[in-house]
Amino acid sequence: MHPFDHATAEGILFTDQYQLTMAQLYFRQGLHETVVQFEHFFRSYPDYGSHKAGYCVNAGLESLLQWMQSARCRDEDIAYLRSQRSATGQRVFEDDFLHWLRANGNFDTLSLSAVPEGRVVHPNVPLTVVQGALAMAQILESSLLNHLNYQTLIATKAARIHESGRGQLLLEFGMRRAQGNGANAGARAALIGGADFSSNVGISHALGYPPKGTHAHSLVQIFMALGEGELGAFRAYAELYPDDCLLLVDTINTLESGIPNAIRVFEELKRKGHQPVGIRLDSGDLAHLSIQAAKMLDAAGFPDTKIVLSNQLDELVIMQIIAQIQDEAVHNSAPHNGFDADAVITRLVYGAGTNLITSAGDPALDGVYKLVAVQQADRWIPAIKISESPAKTLNPGHKLIWRIYDRRGKATADLLSLDDEDPRELPEIVMHHPSDHARYRTLQQADIQEIEPLLIDVLKDGQLVYELPSIEAMRVQRKADMNRLDAGVRRLLNPHIYHVSLTQRLWELKQRLIESAANSA
Amino acid sequence: MHPFDHATAEGILFTDQYQLTMAQLYFRQGLHETVVQFEHFFRSYPDYGSHKAGYCVNAGLESLLQWMQSARCRDEDIAYLRSQRSATGQRVFEDDFLHWLRANGNFDTLSLSAVPEGRVVHPNVPLTVVQGALAMAQILESSLLNHLNYQTLIATKAARIHESGRGQLLLEFGMRRAQGNGANAGARAALIGGADFSSNVGISHALGYPPKGTHAHSLVQIFMALGEGELGAFRAYAELYPDDCLLLVDTINTLESGIPNAIRVFEELKRKGHQPVGIRLDSGDLAHLSIQAAKMLDAAGFPDTKIVLSNQLDELVIMQIIAQIQDEAVHNSAPHNGFDADAVITRLVYGAGTNLITSAGDPALDGVYKLVAVQQADRWIPAIKISESPAKTLNPGHKLIWRIYDRRGKATADLLSLDDEDPRELPEIVMHHPSDHARYRTLQQADIQEIEPLLIDVLKDGQLVYELPSIEAMRVQRKADMNRLDAGVRRLLNPHIYHVSLTQRLWELKQRLIESAANSA
Repeated sequence: MHPFDHATAEGILFTDQYQLTMAQLYFRQGLHETVVQFEHFFRSYPDYGSHKAGYCVNAGLESLLQWMQSARCRDEDIAYLRSQRSATGQRVFEDDFLHWLRANGNFDTLSLSAVPEGRVVHPNVPLTVVQGALAMAQILESSLLNHLNYQTLIATKAARIHESGRGQLLLEFGMRRAQGNGANAGARAALIGGADFSSNVGISHALGYPPKGTHAHSLVQIFMALGEGELGAFRAYAELYPDDCLLLVDTINTLESGIPNAIRVFEELKRKGHQPVGIRLDSGDLAHLSIQAAKMLDAAGFPDTKIVLSNQLDELVIMQIIAQIQDEAVHNSAPHNGFDADAVITRLVYGAGTNLITSAGDPALDGVYKLVAVQQADRWIPAIKISESPAKTLNPGHKLIWRIYDRRGKATADLLSLDDEDPRELPEIVMHHPSDHARYRTLQQADIQEIEPLLIDVLKDGQLVYELPSIEAMRVQRKADMNRLDAGVRRLLNPHIYHVSLTQRLWELKQRLIESAANSA
Repeated sequence: MHPFDHATAEGILFTDQYQLTMAQLYFRQGLHETVVQFEHFFRSYPDYGSHKAGYCVNAGLESLLQWMQSARCRDEDIAYLRSQRSATGQRVFEDDFLHWLRANGNFDTLSLSAVPEGRVVHPNVPLTVVQGALAMAQILESSLLNHLNYQTLIATKAARIHESGRGQLLLEFGMRRAQGNGANAGARAALIGGADFSSNVGISHALGYPPKGTHAHSLVQIFMALGEGELGAFRAYAELYPDDCLLLVDTINTLESGIPNAIRVFEELKRKGHQPVGIRLDSGDLAHLSIQAAKMLDAAGFPDTKIVLSNQLDELVIMQIIAQIQDEAVHNSAPHNGFDADAVITRLVYGAGTNLITSAGDPALDGVYKLVAVQQADRWIPAIKISESPAKTLNPGHKLIWRIYDRRGKATADLLSLDDEDPRELPEIVMHHPSDHARYRTLQQADIQEIEPLLIDVLKDGQLVYELPSIEAMRVQRKADMNRLDAGVRRLLNPHIYHVSLTQRLWELKQRLIESAANSA
């Protein structure tokens, strides 16, 4: 078996071919060390088909920084590039460029500012700003987008699933349906966005979280095949894990076999002084089975045991489970079969796998990385890309990003300004829609509680100037940002549109550049 | 920055926590070295919402084998597991188990048979069969599913996109929208399934394919910002890559700026004796623009240049592009603006990114890994898992897999038999639907051209006994299998259902086990 070369496939060559051919072109034109600015942003919230996000949760920065630190041109990479041939057999990359790349093929000179991980973010707002020599800033594009698009997508999905579960514990179970090692990036992003734990052992360890799990159907099957049955499997599990006893009850028949057997084992545990943890339901009508399981566990004296639900959960499925439990509580209010819906709902735990780790419904965030300015003779020249769709025309030049909180303390808009503007110093702020001339509004300072700058300096000439927060700190930040979102924006279905606006001066620059591009074309 | 520990997150601990807690339970019960058989299969074809696959292309095996070879318990892994604590502060993993795991925590004793990569495959057919000691066969589950589910999903999507493009060149461009390093697994699978090349440099190198690419909008933007415009950018590109000159023409205005500028540069190239490659269109009405571009290029004397299309392509978008080109050819048949649809269609090249690498519409294959037999005193006991949905009830025991070709040489069914059956020796074959009693058919040998066994021995007690094919050989296999599919099964929309059947004896075993499980519950 020819061993797969991870160092090659995951290092500096983890990029698209055109980044390297463009870098050589810049080198040949003497532009490779021209200082430029690229911005990373996404254009629209994930749209899951039947529902759409009203916010995203930013994630992936630290993973990107780690890649940038470790990815650097090695002799093997240069040897490979030297071997590449064009259609007519010519070398694609020439020696002088490769010589330059061998010495400079790293990200040690780039500066980077970013919106921190865990923050709630919105479309068309620069989330990552890269400044430095053109060639390496260009080569960075593919990997930067790879790291940031996916983790922001999954942190967002996790936040939505967490919201739908009303803050009950959420476990990430998706490794088996992820894209190879992408499972690790997904688990990390899920933890930032709203999952409390992951089943993935390695990444949980690397991030300092205990991995979580129950057992699989195969445990019960083994005991059945050996003649000891489900009860034997449960007893063996309880004996070994008396304080972590969580039993999967649907291998044979949930209500007639699984839960009665679990209760017998729980009673045995209780007699020995242990507190059973609960059961897991992985098939069938999860709302109905949760109610029945809760009643059976209550009647047996285990009102504090958890009911873990899994099987294709996402935010809509969980919303429906909760609605159905509430519904059945109203319709079954006769004393002999009544139950307290809240008591059932607050003992639920959600295990989300496939739909979380793939962001089912919309498996990609449309983040892009665009050139916005070029430095020439110490002057910055804004760059623009015109699109036939006005919404896709770039917001040009060096910009700052501000979040504006209204008098209630709720975030009311993200504002993009030129980098020499401070909206805190303006008596009133004219806020333009990014592409529609007719749509703008004016905010008075009296209507504003706070204006917060969002971009943080992360790298200065390759040096880390930012103290990377822990995952826990990111989670705290996410919760704080979520609480400062308007309930309408936070809604799972048909959320209000959050405003992202341009200042008067940025709007004018953009219009000027669109005109001059049209004239020069 | 605390460096991310790849060896931990991607080694033996790239698994779910419950695999390890179950392994310890098996150890405690003396079952850890009990020989068992697990089977991996998927339950249904990818369902993209508006369309559904009628076949899958198998992929991922070699990646899995490489992981199995490199993933083995290290002291650091054991130290971490030793540090895990239960809810009440007890150690989760005890010393005797960890001692065993340190010595045996690898896959060196497992046997594995599989359907080779590149083969067309169908639901409920065992694609990978693992035999060996229970504890390690169990720990393997998460990573096995991770590798095989995703790559089969993407090989399938690539095959469909390739089909929709009628065999025109297909390029994989998806790194920026993949799940971290999963981009590499995705590119590999795309090459097996139908992509001809990838833009991903590292994995292309690792697999021995030249990476492909053009240039990005940023190249044109840079030149515009510096006052040299699109034409300057194109000239610089043509000068450096005279024999690979493929120009992205939609940065400003495709028809009024991009294509005319490209043609000027092509003329300059031609005068210098070079053959320009073509243009890329990345926005707008790709069918209409392809026609216009073809006319302009033809009129300028470049009928052989390619037109590369990108921007959210998938099999339906490509099908529509081709239909629209054919439509416009019929409706614009007046001599002054007529054109030959086939001449346009056969110069197209497709670049598929997001929708290929994420399998948009259905981003996960529902592959599972189920215990089917347990060895006791040299006797194999079939294991079953009953489900409330009959289609999800396991096909038990040791099985063999056969593909039956009809008199036309087309594959008509995959047949699952007991492992001591050879359907080639039966005068007639009764073929049962896997779960519906009423549905079966009988095939005479006279109606059969060939019966082909599908499973190949890959590992015998951890030793590789199979010569791993090259990606190229897998592609040849895929094409051969596709050609032996009925056109109805191969169809992109509403394909015919391919039959997967059980022999009479396997059907009888399954019914017997279902009854006995029902009685024992």
